[in-house]
Amino acid sequence: MSAEPSSLPLPTPTSSSSPAPRFGVWFVGARGSVATTAIAGCAAVAAGLHPPTGMVTETPDFAACGLPSLSSLVFGGHDTVDCPLPKRAEHLAAGGVLPHGLPSAVHTELAAADAEIRPGGPLPRDPDGGPARTDDDWIDVFTADIRDFVGRQNLAGAVVVNVASTEPAPADGSLPPSSLYAAAALRAGCPYVNFTPSTGLHHPRLAPLADSSGLPYAGRDGKTGQTLLRSVLGPMFLQRALTVRAWSGTNLLGGGDGAALADPAAAAAKNAGKERVLADTLGAAPEGEVHIDDVPALGDWKTAWDHIAFDGFLGSRMILQTIWQGCDSALAAPLVLDLARLTLRAREKGLSGPLADLGFYFKDPVGDGPSSLAEQYTRLRHFAARLRTASDASGAHR
Amino acid sequence: MSAEPSSLPLPTPTSSSSPAPRFGVWFVGARGSVATTAIAGCAAVAAGLHPPTGMVTETPDFAACGLPSLSSLVFGGHDTVDCPLPKRAEHLAAGGVLPHGLPSAVHTELAAADAEIRPGGPLPRDPDGGPARTDDDWIDVFTADIRDFVGRQNLAGAVVVNVASTEPAPADGSLPPSSLYAAAALRAGCPYVNFTPSTGLHHPRLAPLADSSGLPYAGRDGKTGQTLLRSVLGPMFLQRALTVRAWSGTNLLGGGDGAALADPAAAAAKNAGKERVLADTLGAAPEGEVHIDDVPALGDWKTAWDHIAFDGFLGSRMILQTIWQGCDSALAAPLVLDLARLTLRAREKGLSGPLADLGFYFKDPVGDGPSSLAEQYTRLRHFAARLRTASDASGAHR
Amino acid sequence: MSAEPSSLPLPTPTSSSSPAPRFGVWFVGARGSVATTAIAGCAAVAAGLHPPTGMVTETPDFAACGLPSLSSLVFGGHDTVDCPLPKRAEHLAAGGVLPHGLPSAVHTELAAADAEIRPGGPLPRDPDGGPARTDDDWIDVFTADIRDFVGRQNLAGAVVVNVASTEPAPADGSLPPSSLYAAAALRAGCPYVNFTPSTGLHHPRLAPLADSSGLPYAGRDGKTGQTLLRSVLGPMFLQRALTVRAWSGTNLLGGGDGAALADPAAAAAKNAGKERVLADTLGAAPEGEVHIDDVPALGDWKTAWDHIAFDGFLGSRMILQTIWQGCDSALAAPLVLDLARLTLRAREKGLSGPLADLGFYFKDPVGDGPSSLAEQYTRLRHFAARLRTASDASGAHR
Amino acid sequence: MSAEPSSLPLPTPTSSSSPAPRFGVWFVGARGSVATTAIAGCAAVAAGLHPPTGMVTETPDFAACGLPSLSSLVFGGHDTVDCPLPKRAEHLAAGGVLPHGLPSAVHTELAAADAEIRPGGPLPRDPDGGPARTDDDWIDVFTADIRDFVGRQNLAGAVVVNVASTEPAPADGSLPPSSLYAAAALRAGCPYVNFTPSTGLHHPRLAPLADSSGLPYAGRDGKTGQTLLRSVLGPMFLQRALTVRAWSGTNLLGGGDGAALADPAAAAAKNAGKERVLADTLGAAPEGEVHIDDVPALGDWKTAWDHIAFDGFLGSRMILQTIWQGCDSALAAPLVLDLARLTLRAREKGLSGPLADLGFYFKDPVGDGPSSLAEQYTRLRHFAARLRTASDASGAHR
Repeated sequence: MSAEPSSLPLPTPTSSSSPAPRFGVWFVGARGSVATTAIAGCAAVAAGLHPPTGMVTETPDFAACGLPSLSSLVFGGHDTVDCPLPKRAEHLAAGGVLPHGLPSAVHTELAAADAEIRPGGPLPRDPDGGPARTDDDWIDVFTADIRDFVGRQNLAGAVVVNVASTEPAPADGSLPPSSLYAAAALRAGCPYVNFTPSTGLHHPRLAPLADSSGLPYAGRDGKTGQTLLRSVLGPMFLQRALTVRAWSGTNLLGGGDGAALADPAAAAAKNAGKERVLADTLGAAPEGEVHIDDVPALGDWKTAWDHIAFDGFLGSRMILQTIWQGCDSALAAPLVLDLARLTLRAREKGLSGPLADLGFYFKDPVGDGPSSLAEQYTRLRHFAARLRTASDASGAHR
Repeated sequence: MSAEPSSLPLPTPTSSSSPAPRFGVWFVGARGSVATTAIAGCAAVAAGLHPPTGMVTETPDFAACGLPSLSSLVFGGHDTVDCPLPKRAEHLAAGGVLPHGLPSAVHTELAAADAEIRPGGPLPRDPDGGPARTDDDWIDVFTADIRDFVGRQNLAGAVVVNVASTEPAPADGSLPPSSLYAAAALRAGCPYVNFTPSTGLHHPRLAPLADSSGLPYAGRDGKTGQTLLRSVLGPMFLQRALTVRAWSGTNLLGGGDGAALADPAAAAAKNAGKERVLADTLGAAPEGEVHIDDVPALGDWKTAWDHIAFDGFLGSRMILQTIWQGCDSALAAPLVLDLARLTLRAREKGLSGPLADLGFYFKDPVGDGPSSLAEQYTRLRHFAARLRTASDASGAHR
Repeated sequence: MSAEPSSLPLPTPTSSSSPAPRFGVWFVGARGSVATTAIAGCAAVAAGLHPPTGMVTETPDFAACGLPSLSSLVFGGHDTVDCPLPKRAEHLAAGGVLPHGLPSAVHTELAAADAEIRPGGPLPRDPDGGPARTDDDWIDVFTADIRDFVGRQNLAGAVVVNVASTEPAPADGSLPPSSLYAAAALRAGCPYVNFTPSTGLHHPRLAPLADSSGLPYAGRDGKTGQTLLRSVLGPMFLQRALTVRAWSGTNLLGGGDGAALADPAAAAAKNAGKERVLADTLGAAPEGEVHIDDVPALGDWKTAWDHIAFDGFLGSRMILQTIWQGCDSALAAPLVLDLARLTLRAREKGLSGPLADLGFYFKDPVGDGPSSLAEQYTRLRHFAARLRTASDASGAHR
Repeated sequence: MSAEPSSLPLPTPTSSSSPAPRFGVWFVGARGSVATTAIAGCAAVAAGLHPPTGMVTETPDFAACGLPSLSSLVFGGHDTVDCPLPKRAEHLAAGGVLPHGLPSAVHTELAAADAEIRPGGPLPRDPDGGPARTDDDWIDVFTADIRDFVGRQNLAGAVVVNVASTEPAPADGSLPPSSLYAAAALRAGCPYVNFTPSTGLHHPRLAPLADSSGLPYAGRDGKTGQTLLRSVLGPMFLQRALTVRAWSGTNLLGGGDGAALADPAAAAAKNAGKERVLADTLGAAPEGEVHIDDVPALGDWKTAWDHIAFDGFLGSRMILQTIWQGCDSALAAPLVLDLARLTLRAREKGLSGPLADLGFYFKDPVGDGPSSLAEQYTRLRHFAARLRTASDASGAHR
C-alpha cells in the first residue's frame, strides 16, 4: 500500500479570465443525515434561503481568509445504502430536521450530489465483504472513485470528510473501513477530516503515510452537543477552583446514530472522546459514567442530561445539571462545511500534517492544543489569520 | 465631604526583624452569611482544617504574587444587627452552610472578629435614620471606626468590602448607605470592593473622589452562580454562531438574601447585572425575563433554572436548560477572600483606580474588560503576573 | 336581561328513517389556536387520518355512552379577529402545532366552520366598545347568532365553549365579555363550557340565571399541563405523608396566550387556578410563586418548570423538579372536543346545573368534587356510566 | 426443610393489668442505612423529637386500627457487618441522612437494638460460606436467633423485614441468602416483609411453605423514589389518553446501595420492578432503558432523572422530565415502620397469605392489585378499615 499524493498536482492559481475554481467535498457516508443536511443546507444558504446559523466560517473573523465560497462546493461521496439524497432529505424534513419545503427547493443540488455517490466498501463485520478484495484493493477502488470525481468535475481540489456511522474499535491489526477510506484520501492527494470517533488515520499502519503525504488532516469526532458543553463547563470549575467530584451523563437519541451507538463497542469509542474532554479540562477524570441509549421515538433529536456534583468552599456540596435538546445533524452539518472549507484552504496554502488549530471542532483533536473551548476558539482565530496572509508555504508542522 | 487618603500613609516596608505584617478586612455587613462564612472559612483553611476549595488565589498561578497570607488577615466591620458571629455561625451550620463542628473549632477567631464590629448606619428607608445625622456625619463616623481598627490592630493596610444585603436603587440624588460606607473607605485611605449590586462608589458624587483618591477599587456584584454560568455559556453560543432567541431564568432562594430581593427595587438592581452579562457576551439582549423568588424553605441554598432557546442550522429550534443548586455564601466567601487579598496587594503595589482585571469576579465589572469568563480568567492571570514583579509603581490606569 | 331556555325546545328523538342528528359546537374565540386545532383535528380524526390521541371520550369506557360522533359535530362561533380558519391553520402548521399537510387535507371543513364565525363583542378595555351597546344588547346579538346557526344548520342541539384568551378579572360589577357570551348561551338554550379562567357564568348576576335555566354547564380553566401534573403529584405527597414546604413554578410560552398572560391581571386569574389545585390537593397552600412569561420565540410551545421542596422522615430535605414541554393547543383541543360531546349528551339526558363530575378537565371545577386527578377520573367514569343508562331524566342536581 | 409456624403460638390477648405488649421488628440487614434510620427514627418520633413525616400509619385514617405503637417496637436482626448501630448512625449524620444530634439523643435505643443483632449468613457468592453448612442448617440458625429474641424479650409477636442490599438473581435452583432468612421467618412463625428486590419468599421451594404457614407476608421492593413517581405519572398518561412512546431513566446513587447495584445482576433485579410498574400502569412497556450508576460522591443521596416522550393530539411530540433528589434511607425508613406495624397487626387479626392490599408500598406487589398509586392508596385505606373491625378471623385469602 502506498500513498501517491504527488500524482495529483497542487492546484495552480487560476487566471482572472478563467471561471471561478470549484472544490470537491467527498463524504464517506454521503447519504447519512449529516451529509444530507450539509448538502441541502449549503445550497439553501448559498441561495440566501437561510442565514448561515452555526457556520463559524461565515462570521466576520473568517471573511478575508480566502475560503472557498459555499457556491463553489461540489459534493459526492461513498455510501453503502441506496436511498437517493432527495428522498433522504424528505425523510429528514418529515422528522423535523430539515425545514419543510427545503428538499424541493434544493432538489437540483441534491440530485446532482446523489449522482456523484459511489458504492461504499466493506461493512463492519460483513461476513462476505472481506475475502474477495484485499484492503489494498478497496483502497484502490475508493481512490479511483475520488480521482474520477475530481477529474470529471474539473475541481481545483477536494477534501474527504468522514461522516459515516461510528464503527466499532477494530479488534486486531486489520484496517477498519474508515481507515480504508482515509488511505484512499491520501492516495488521491486529498486532505482528510474525520468527524467521527472511528479509526480513520489513527491506525499504526496509516500514521507514516499520513506524515509523508504532505497533506493536512483534521479530526477526530465532532464536538456538537454534550461534549461541547463539557468543554466550556469543565474550564469554569477549574478556573474557579471548584472540585468536581462526579460528572455523569445520559444521552438519548434515535435515528441511525442511536442504533449504531447501541452497539457497546461503538459506544465505547464515542464515550472515550467525551471522557477525554473532562479529564483534559478538569485535570483528572471525575467519578461518573456516560450512557448512550437508542430511543427510536426521538428520531434525529437528541437529549443529553449531565449531572455534575462539585464541592465548594469548606466542602459544601453543590450540583449543576444541564439538559441539552438538539438535532445532531443540524449541529454537525455547519461544522462539517466549516471544516471542509478550512481544510481545503489549508491545503491551498500548503499546510500539512495534523491541524491542531481545529481542536475547536473535535472531542479528540489531532496534534497538541488546549482543551477548553475558549482557548480553542482563540487558536481557531489565529489559524484564520494565517489563512489570510498573502503567501504562506509553511506547513502545519512548522 | 472630602476624601483624605493622604492622612493614612502608605504602608512602609517592614524590616526583616519585625513581625510579619497583618492586614485588615473590613466588611460592610459583617454579621451576614457571606462575611461569617468568609471569616470562619479563612480561619479553617489557615488552620489546615479544610482545603482552599473555591479560592482562586490559592492556585499555583498566584503562589508568588506576594498576596497577604490567610493567617495575616484580621477581620472587622460594620453591621446593623446584633447577633454575634459565633452564634450566627451556629445558625449557618444548622442550615448546612458551614460544616458541623466548624463554629466551635474557630470560635476564637469568630469572637475576635465580632469584637471588631461597629454599629452600622442608616438603614434603607429608615424613617428615623436620616434627620439626626447628615451624610457627612455618617461618613465621618464610619471613617473613624475604620481608622481606629487599623490603628489599634497595627495593620499594614486594610480593605473595605461590601457584602451587605442588596439595597434598592436610590430614588434621587441622595447617597444611599452603601455609598456612605464607600466614601468612608476612601476617606480612611482604604481600597474598596463592592461585592453587591448596591451603588457604592457608582454614584456621581463619589466618582471624582474615587478618581483622585489614588486608591484601587473593584466591583460590582459578585458573579457566583447563575451569572457565572451565563458568562461561560453565552460565549459558547457566540463562538459557535448559534442564535440565542430567548434566555429565561428563575432563582429560588431563602435566607436573608431571598427576603431582601423580594423587594422589587432590590431585585431590579440585581437583575440588571445578570442581563448585562448576557447582552455583553451575546452581542445583543435576547428575549426572556429573570425572576428572583424568596422561598424561605430553601434557607441559604439557591436553585437557579435557566432555559435557553436557540436556533441552529437552517433555523432548527434547540434548547439548553441548566439547573444550579448551590449555597450562595459558600460560593461568595472564597471570592471575597480572593478579592480582599488581591486588592490589598494591589494597593501595596501602588495600583490605583478601577481594577478592570478583576472582572472575573463580577457581574458588572468596573473599567473596560472582556465579558466572557475565559477571557476574564486570562486577564486575572496577567494581573497576577503584574503583582509578582519586583517593583511596580504604575497604577491600574496605566 | 332574562334567560329564555324554554324558547329552544329540548331535542326530540329522531326517527330511525331520518338522517343522523348533527350537533353544534359554538366557540367563543373561534379563530384562536385551540378552536382551530379542535376543528381541524376533529375532521382529521373523523376521517381516520390520525388516531384520537388525547381524547378520553374515544377510550372504551365511553364507547356506549351515546356521545355525538365526531362526524356529527358542526362548528361555528364568535371571534374578534378576521384571519380565516384555513389560513390560521397554515400558521399553526408552520409553527409545528398542526402536522404539515393537515390544513390542506381538511380545508373543506375549516372553510365551512369559518363561514359560521360571527363578529365578537366588546374587547376587554375597549374604549369604544361599551357606550353604543348595553350589555343586554350584546347578549341579544350573540344569542341571535347562535340561534341562527342552530336553525339554519338544523342541529339537534348546540354547546357554547369559551376558548378565548384569558381576560383580566373584572374590576367592578360590570359583565366582562366572557359573561356576555355565557349569558347568550343560556338565552339560546345551550349548555356552556368555560375552558378559560375568565369569569363566564361565575358572575353574581349570572348565577341565578344559570340555576334557573335547566341547562348543564361546566368549567373552569382547562387543566392541560403544569396543573395537570400538580393534580397528580400533590396527592402523591399527601398520601405518602411527605410535607411539601415550597412549590414554585415558571411557565414560558409564546403565541397569543403568552401575550395575553403577560397582562398581570390576566395572569393573576390564571394563577389563582393553579394555586387552588395545590391548596386543595395538599390541604394547605405551600410557599412559592408561579410565573408566566411571554416568550414569543417559543411560539405555541410551552415549557413549565416546577420545583418542589419537601421534607421527608426526620426533616430530611428533598426536591422534585419537573419540566413539561408541550403544545398547549394540542393538549387543549382533544379535551375541548371531549367536553363538547359530554355536555351535549348531558343536555340530551336532561342533566342540568354544574357538572361537577367533569372536574377531571378543570383547574377550578364547578360544583363539589375531589381535587386529585385519580379521583376525578373515577368520577368521570361514573358519569360515563350515567350517560349510558337507557333513560335518565334526573338532573345533575339530583 | 419444614416450616413450623405452630411452634410459636398466636399471641394471646393481654389482660388489662399486664404491661402493654411489645412487638419485635427483626431486620435482615440490621446495620444498614435503612434499618439504622428506622430504628433511630422510631425512637426519635416516639420521643416527640420529630413529627412522623413520611409515616402513613400516623395519619388519621390509621388512628384506630390497633397498630402497635412506635414505643412498643423492639428491634433486632441479622447482619454480616460489625459496625455498631450507634457508630453507623454517626456516619449517617455526617452524611446528612440523620439530623446532627440525633445519634446521641437516641443512643440508648440504638445500643439496645445493636445488642440484639446476630451474625448474618452466607454472603452472595461467598466462596467459603456454603460448604460447611447446608441451607437447612442456616435456616435453623436464623430461626433460633429469632425465637431467642422473641422469647427473651417476651414479645407479643415479631415481624421479619428484609432491608439488606439487593442480591443478584440466583443462578440456579439454590436458595439465595434472602430466601434462607425468609424461610427462617416462616419457621419462627413470623410474618415477613421483603422491602428489597431480592428473592425472599419468591422461590419455588418456598412458595408452598408460605401458603401453608398461615402467616401474612408482603413485598416486594419498596417503592420510594423514581418508581413512586412512575406509579402516579403512568396513570396520568393513560387517563388522558396520551401515548407514551419512550420512558428513559437514570439513577445516580452512592452509599452501599450504589455499590451493590453496580453489579449488573443486582441492577437487573431492581430494574425489573421499575419496568413492571410502567408496563402495568401504561398497559404496555414503552421504549427506554433504566440505568443505575454507582456514584460514591453522592453518598446516601440519590438523583433520578426520567425523560418521557409522549404523543399528544394529532401526533404532536411532547416531553416530560422529572428530577428527583432524595435520600433513600429517609424515604424507606418510615415505610418500613409502616409495614412492620401493619403486618404485625394483620398477624394479630389472623390474616394470612399475600397482603395484596399493601401494594401501595411496593414496586412488585404480592397478590393481585392495582398498579396506580391512587388506587393502591384506596386499597390501603380499605385495609386499614379491616384492621379496625372488632374481631376478624378471616385471612387475606378470603
